[in-house]
Amino acid sequence: MPFFDLSLDELQKYLPPRQEPSDFDNFWNNTLQEARAIPINARFEPIDFGLRNVETYDVTFKGYGGQDIKGWLLKPKGQNGKIPCVVEFIGYGGGRGFPIDWLTWSSAGYIHLVMDTRGQGSSFLKGDTPDDPDAAIDPQFPGFMTRGILSPTTYYYRRVFTDAVRAVEVAKQYPDVDSDKIIVTGGSQGGGITLAVAGLVPDVFAAMPDVPFLCHYRRATEITDSAPYIEISKYCAVHRDKVDQVFSTLSYFDGVNFAARAKCPALFSVGLMDEVCPPSTVFAAYNHYAGPKEIRVYTYNHHEGGGNYQTLEKIKFLHNLLDE
Amino acid sequence: MPFFDLSLDELQKYLPPRQEPSDFDNFWNNTLQEARAIPINARFEPIDFGLRNVETYDVTFKGYGGQDIKGWLLKPKGQNGKIPCVVEFIGYGGGRGFPIDWLTWSSAGYIHLVMDTRGQGSSFLKGDTPDDPDAAIDPQFPGFMTRGILSPTTYYYRRVFTDAVRAVEVAKQYPDVDSDKIIVTGGSQGGGITLAVAGLVPDVFAAMPDVPFLCHYRRATEITDSAPYIEISKYCAVHRDKVDQVFSTLSYFDGVNFAARAKCPALFSVGLMDEVCPPSTVFAAYNHYAGPKEIRVYTYNHHEGGGNYQTLEKIKFLHNLLDE
Amino acid sequence: MPFFDLSLDELQKYLPPRQEPSDFDNFWNNTLQEARAIPINARFEPIDFGLRNVETYDVTFKGYGGQDIKGWLLKPKGQNGKIPCVVEFIGYGGGRGFPIDWLTWSSAGYIHLVMDTRGQGSSFLKGDTPDDPDAAIDPQFPGFMTRGILSPTTYYYRRVFTDAVRAVEVAKQYPDVDSDKIIVTGGSQGGGITLAVAGLVPDVFAAMPDVPFLCHYRRATEITDSAPYIEISKYCAVHRDKVDQVFSTLSYFDGVNFAARAKCPALFSVGLMDEVCPPSTVFAAYNHYAGPKEIRVYTYNHHEGGGNYQTLEKIKFLHNLLDE
Amino acid sequence: MPFFDLSLDELQKYLPPRQEPSDFDNFWNNTLQEARAIPINARFEPIDFGLRNVETYDVTFKGYGGQDIKGWLLKPKGQNGKIPCVVEFIGYGGGRGFPIDWLTWSSAGYIHLVMDTRGQGSSFLKGDTPDDPDAAIDPQFPGFMTRGILSPTTYYYRRVFTDAVRAVEVAKQYPDVDSDKIIVTGGSQGGGITLAVAGLVPDVFAAMPDVPFLCHYRRATEITDSAPYIEISKYCAVHRDKVDQVFSTLSYFDGVNFAARAKCPALFSVGLMDEVCPPSTVFAAYNHYAGPKEIRVYTYNHHEGGGNYQTLEKIKFLHNLLDE
Amino acid sequence: MPFFDLSLDELQKYLPPRQEPSDFDNFWNNTLQEARAIPINARFEPIDFGLRNVETYDVTFKGYGGQDIKGWLLKPKGQNGKIPCVVEFIGYGGGRGFPIDWLTWSSAGYIHLVMDTRGQGSSFLKGDTPDDPDAAIDPQFPGFMTRGILSPTTYYYRRVFTDAVRAVEVAKQYPDVDSDKIIVTGGSQGGGITLAVAGLVPDVFAAMPDVPFLCHYRRATEITDSAPYIEISKYCAVHRDKVDQVFSTLSYFDGVNFAARAKCPALFSVGLMDEVCPPSTVFAAYNHYAGPKEIRVYTYNHHEGGGNYQTLEKIKFLHNLLDE
Amino acid sequence: MPFFDLSLDELQKYLPPRQEPSDFDNFWNNTLQEARAIPINARFEPIDFGLRNVETYDVTFKGYGGQDIKGWLLKPKGQNGKIPCVVEFIGYGGGRGFPIDWLTWSSAGYIHLVMDTRGQGSSFLKGDTPDDPDAAIDPQFPGFMTRGILSPTTYYYRRVFTDAVRAVEVAKQYPDVDSDKIIVTGGSQGGGITLAVAGLVPDVFAAMPDVPFLCHYRRATEITDSAPYIEISKYCAVHRDKVDQVFSTLSYFDGVNFAARAKCPALFSVGLMDEVCPPSTVFAAYNHYAGPKEIRVYTYNHHEGGGNYQTLEKIKFLHNLLDE
Repeated sequence: MPFFDLSLDELQKYLPPRQEPSDFDNFWNNTLQEARAIPINARFEPIDFGLRNVETYDVTFKGYGGQDIKGWLLKPKGQNGKIPCVVEFIGYGGGRGFPIDWLTWSSAGYIHLVMDTRGQGSSFLKGDTPDDPDAAIDPQFPGFMTRGILSPTTYYYRRVFTDAVRAVEVAKQYPDVDSDKIIVTGGSQGGGITLAVAGLVPDVFAAMPDVPFLCHYRRATEITDSAPYIEISKYCAVHRDKVDQVFSTLSYFDGVNFAARAKCPALFSVGLMDEVCPPSTVFAAYNHYAGPKEIRVYTYNHHEGGGNYQTLEKIKFLHNLLDE
Repeated sequence: MPFFDLSLDELQKYLPPRQEPSDFDNFWNNTLQEARAIPINARFEPIDFGLRNVETYDVTFKGYGGQDIKGWLLKPKGQNGKIPCVVEFIGYGGGRGFPIDWLTWSSAGYIHLVMDTRGQGSSFLKGDTPDDPDAAIDPQFPGFMTRGILSPTTYYYRRVFTDAVRAVEVAKQYPDVDSDKIIVTGGSQGGGITLAVAGLVPDVFAAMPDVPFLCHYRRATEITDSAPYIEISKYCAVHRDKVDQVFSTLSYFDGVNFAARAKCPALFSVGLMDEVCPPSTVFAAYNHYAGPKEIRVYTYNHHEGGGNYQTLEKIKFLHNLLDE
Repeated sequence: MPFFDLSLDELQKYLPPRQEPSDFDNFWNNTLQEARAIPINARFEPIDFGLRNVETYDVTFKGYGGQDIKGWLLKPKGQNGKIPCVVEFIGYGGGRGFPIDWLTWSSAGYIHLVMDTRGQGSSFLKGDTPDDPDAAIDPQFPGFMTRGILSPTTYYYRRVFTDAVRAVEVAKQYPDVDSDKIIVTGGSQGGGITLAVAGLVPDVFAAMPDVPFLCHYRRATEITDSAPYIEISKYCAVHRDKVDQVFSTLSYFDGVNFAARAKCPALFSVGLMDEVCPPSTVFAAYNHYAGPKEIRVYTYNHHEGGGNYQTLEKIKFLHNLLDE
Repeated sequence: MPFFDLSLDELQKYLPPRQEPSDFDNFWNNTLQEARAIPINARFEPIDFGLRNVETYDVTFKGYGGQDIKGWLLKPKGQNGKIPCVVEFIGYGGGRGFPIDWLTWSSAGYIHLVMDTRGQGSSFLKGDTPDDPDAAIDPQFPGFMTRGILSPTTYYYRRVFTDAVRAVEVAKQYPDVDSDKIIVTGGSQGGGITLAVAGLVPDVFAAMPDVPFLCHYRRATEITDSAPYIEISKYCAVHRDKVDQVFSTLSYFDGVNFAARAKCPALFSVGLMDEVCPPSTVFAAYNHYAGPKEIRVYTYNHHEGGGNYQTLEKIKFLHNLLDE
Repeated sequence: MPFFDLSLDELQKYLPPRQEPSDFDNFWNNTLQEARAIPINARFEPIDFGLRNVETYDVTFKGYGGQDIKGWLLKPKGQNGKIPCVVEFIGYGGGRGFPIDWLTWSSAGYIHLVMDTRGQGSSFLKGDTPDDPDAAIDPQFPGFMTRGILSPTTYYYRRVFTDAVRAVEVAKQYPDVDSDKIIVTGGSQGGGITLAVAGLVPDVFAAMPDVPFLCHYRRATEITDSAPYIEISKYCAVHRDKVDQVFSTLSYFDGVNFAARAKCPALFSVGLMDEVCPPSTVFAAYNHYAGPKEIRVYTYNHHEGGGNYQTLEKIKFLHNLLDE
Repeated sequence: MPFFDLSLDELQKYLPPRQEPSDFDNFWNNTLQEARAIPINARFEPIDFGLRNVETYDVTFKGYGGQDIKGWLLKPKGQNGKIPCVVEFIGYGGGRGFPIDWLTWSSAGYIHLVMDTRGQGSSFLKGDTPDDPDAAIDPQFPGFMTRGILSPTTYYYRRVFTDAVRAVEVAKQYPDVDSDKIIVTGGSQGGGITLAVAGLVPDVFAAMPDVPFLCHYRRATEITDSAPYIEISKYCAVHRDKVDQVFSTLSYFDGVNFAARAKCPALFSVGLMDEVCPPSTVFAAYNHYAGPKEIRVYTYNHHEGGGNYQTLEKIKFLHNLLDE
């Protein structure tokens, strides 16, 4: 059934209680503190892919555990002065690909930093950043959702979210960037990371999560059997005695909890027929979001959401916000 | 089986006899002559989608039958003087979408004209151009492959290919374009149209068809049951008495025949596991292609072909060709 | 889930408010008036397919816009005097095929007129009638559901329903037909057309829509993703800004609205597991139907509904009605 | 791949050696002799389904083991004198349904006897004839293909083919039938039974098997995994030690062997993309067929074969044969 | 949707009214009385499959109608004295296979009797027991669910459940078995048979049905379209006039009704995402179960349920029960 | 097509040239030498899962890199003296589960050591052994096939195969084991590991690989798109520039190369319809196998191969070999 989730009316009011561990903030403070203890060492090397209207840089910086994280930085050639910067996170399975995969924001006049997702980048866009866990990896279901899932300390997204917070710091350091104007965005997993950063970095200028993943995990596993949430379900189907432990870990990484801590203006989007990131999991985060917020609802769309209609909305939203 | 077609060795030598009607050139000369009898009336209206590093224009011109065809023209903001122009044709089912869907070539420093495909644009990217057949449309299988298929005169692609030839003429007219440097490109259906234009317009500067569709129809229907070739098979499955008539019509629209008439340098690409546009149908066109040519072979790829690896190849190919 | 829609209890009471434009009747009066302004010019040419117990005629008449619509007329050989006539409309994608595809009603002793559906007839039974829109066809999703959908004036079913009303007029003209005894019937799309005719032609003798399509469109798109309703959803998924316009057009073509205007006795049928024409969309029409009515409910059936069990019911229903 | 079998050229020459047990004729002579030892006791009871232009009879006769086999007999109302009779056998899973399911041949002027297939008739058309094996049924894969498959004596089709031979004898007895003019026909399983009867009953007037099933079993299981041949493969996948025994049994029931014994004129049909009854299995029977023969080849068709195009061919073929 | 049935809260309270014919007990008393009128004639023949730590016997006994039913008996080599015996019934489509398919209970120190399921054993594990109905088999949908379904007297499971009751009697007779300690168990169909035996044999020591099939049929057909319940739905879809008769028969074979008669301690298991045996059908039986009972709930599991986690639970449950 | 690979005749002669790097033996000698430099420290802790006829031990030993590898050891309770030991490796995605998952060989009178596969054990049977790469993990396709695939040094199976060699050494150390009688076995991935061990450990007594995976990788990716070989193809589809590097790495891990070094007697099995481990990849290893060898061919089986028919063959084969 196309409308397999709550009705739009119900969604707009859907505010489920948050599953939040008492040491949530502590956990993240400690995690980020440790990461920041290592100098970020951001490098921007010019690289030529034949794009004559855009300056392109191969970016490297120290993320979680001081490990090297890759990215691209694109700068529109004509623009001068301090420019706002959009930091973008990537959907599940993809890597940073090439700069030509990321032309929207430089064409729109912004500096654009795209962060590679560690370990990912072999399912659609190629990635260049290894994942380097602190310890041996417990048995996991294929994919990244259950890597290290038996503890928040070892969980994969602890590393990714830390990388992402660091990416924002990289952007601020770039000479031509207006460091008060860092915008975070991304779709699906990129949207989930966007929410995490919005919750963890108080001075982000705006957040634009599209059809965000990594929210309201338990409900997600109960109403969809699409990838990638299914990885969690599959893991629980085998490790029948570890279900509680799994969801205890995930409570440290739930977009709903990050949303409740965010302060910057946000533009969300959602597809009412999205069986990858079901609308109730998106609205759970949206309705808990603590900053000023808007959401664009796409009635007949699945996980593709608003597509480039939404990109236009985002450009407009950002232009407006910056012109205010 | 992933390798369901000929082996690479066989593909490289695969030169099937061409099914070519004796009045092929006549048919196309007359068709284009008629179209050109109507003034092209190209209009370029500036339109703002928030892209501050690219000039964007809403394009309209008279295509087949003097009907209005839409398109986008993108011009990189910094560039001056006469600039080469890439004319792009779109894959099956898609329309011109928005300018943000087409940022590669302006970012690479080219003027970029994207032609809407009449009637299409409701399957992935939205389109804005109606299809206006001369006469009533005979019963057809859903889609565009069998619209008017009982005669070359009424066949849908007669109108599309004519539009495409006209689009090249539009590009030449644009003030900032270097009219000796018109490059045609496109993937899948866009690749098929690219071949048609390369065969019909002698002075095109270069052609870059990716995983081209609309080639070697009969074999295609015999070795793949993927969309969109399947539309032809389904039609023939119902209209059992019209199989010969169908393929007689298609012989006027076969990329293999256009390839044999093309003269400009070409860069092809192919995926060896492509069940949408099987490799033997691509190599049939490539091996018959009469101009200087290269092909990039992607062994483990399906219809996505080289993806942005191939875009990089195309940028390099073009930069080299223009710098010679 | 097999029972994906309302329960039978709920279905029997399901009377959703009608989405009905204020100029609904006007629209149809004008449409039919225009059509009737052109002489119907019905032709019945004997044609031999080897059926020695049935007289078969190739029928042609002027439908919407004065365009030629094809059909078959079958007359049982033995019968004399004025005979009731069953006018049948065809399911989505099919055309009139051959007379041997339509032997039920002549075998049952009725004259039988089968109307070809313009443009259709390439998916299962072959069709012979072109579709001739007044104007260019806006981009559409493959199929017929979204052809011209941006305005009631250009919408495909405006032409089809008008053809169908004219087909009834053709039947009345046939010499051996008892013109007071015109019965309309059809399954799926044919059922939807049946409802339209029942609502538009006051003196039809009886209507027998089976598992009718073309009813309660919005709900249909929300609870099923089966073809052909999915064509509407897919269109809306791409043309995200035209959803309201689409459903505004469809309100002129909704079987629910036609049902509310019908007066003749009706026999409906429905399959409770039908995901093509979900039971709530059928009951919406049935419960709004304004004439005397019965419905046969098939609990374990999908879109095949009652199959030939229902054909027997229809024969019985008609014999009874005529014998009264 | 749509063309998954031999090419048409190869098919036309395909004459694989026959797997034929030395006591094949003995086996069948004994089987039929036993069956004929029991009086056939054919009963024709008029039954009213509202068909006013056809006389319909509920038929019962003694088939294999003296068990009651059901059928329908339809007689066109207008016809007089001795009339040829078409005996029809039904596709796999179907039963005799209702007379309205079988109107072609009476409409074409023939008497029509439709034989129910014992045990079948719960997959599409309902059946009314139980299957009554002589002994307990060994474990079998769901369906009918492996019922009793461990010996020709207990195999299901021994009973069915015997019923079919008896059905021809029933037709000959019917008063209005011209007993020299018994034609056998059927599609798929019905085509396989048709071949069996053509091989077992020397004086049948003509045979018209469409896309026949039950031919060249071993090859079938090797090139298709479609139902129903897959039932044999699945059985062999479990009973790994009984593969030879299975094919030894099947050699008594192979349409290829019956074809080699047939004498009457035959019209075959085949779909080149048929993955249910692959073309090489059909051509194996056709090329071994010992009587005068023609075959209609449908290039773009799967198991639906020629559909009603073929029905028209059959009517023409029969009219011609009878008029000679 | 993974949670397609009631919520766990609702499931725990789900106590639907029982559909129980008034002569239920009579029917079964008579059935068993008839069966017991024939001497059971249990034979245990040593058979060598190379298992040097287990004694293995090929078992044969008289089941329903005095027909020979096969089984295996495994006895752990080291154990002495009277030993409890686990009698196991097999899932749908499987047969007794080989002793190596059944090593759990002998390894755990129990005697183990595995009963072959008549007619089954060609879908995964091979079977060796024919099904021998009293009378001819009415048309049935492929499989065993609708064999003889038009009357409780001829229904397939009448024979199977009777065999199972007899198997318990066989176990009691085996010299080394402690006849007060017969435990019945099985998964899916084996679980359904387990419930039947628990309801029909008062002195069974314990019952351990896993994800039981054959419970609450009507609801099952309404909320799942998975095999094997779908066989019933498919049958009803064809035999549209026999739906009530079908469910009247099934009421004699419903695990819910057997559960309400059971007295021994039971350990159930259920998967909350099981679309083969939906949780509400399992809880319907569990909640009606009249003896002491426990249930293990596996949240993220489908029909595999608890797998070997549950086997460990069963071993523990049994050890505890026996040690009490 | 069920027979999608070479014919049995061709398979029996299929001896493709080996892709073998010149430092193959060096690589493995060094790898094993390093591993053996760390004391194996095998621990066998009794653990109670209620199996009263089998002694069960939780095994831990130092595998690759000195990392802790888990396993189970099962000892039949009645047996005395030095007993042969079967070391078993597990299929892809599974872990050691519980001892009750592995009862065959103790029931047959052997000691049985089951090795956990590092990192795996979340797809069907649960695993308990983490994977601990030496370095950060490059981007990989979900699963284990491409973990570290850019170099033989970092490739995942380097660690697994080393663990497996060590597991044999563990078995030899166990007090009750006859250290001259170590047999290695496993199905699918377990079969691939079996081949690796047979090639790397000269004094293994026998090897019994069933439907072995990890053989003849390149051909596998060309003729099947089933998991898990597809992981390699998917990786190559994204990392289009690393195809040669991938297959260069895999040449160090190809069962074909290990087979050519093996000396002990071997019993293989293969399913001719196996699209997971296509028969030509199995026969490539079998035909290159350098020791005495037999193969059981299962004609109608897919990846399940001989199932327990093959287990019986293995028991017989082993009993015979040991009794010689």
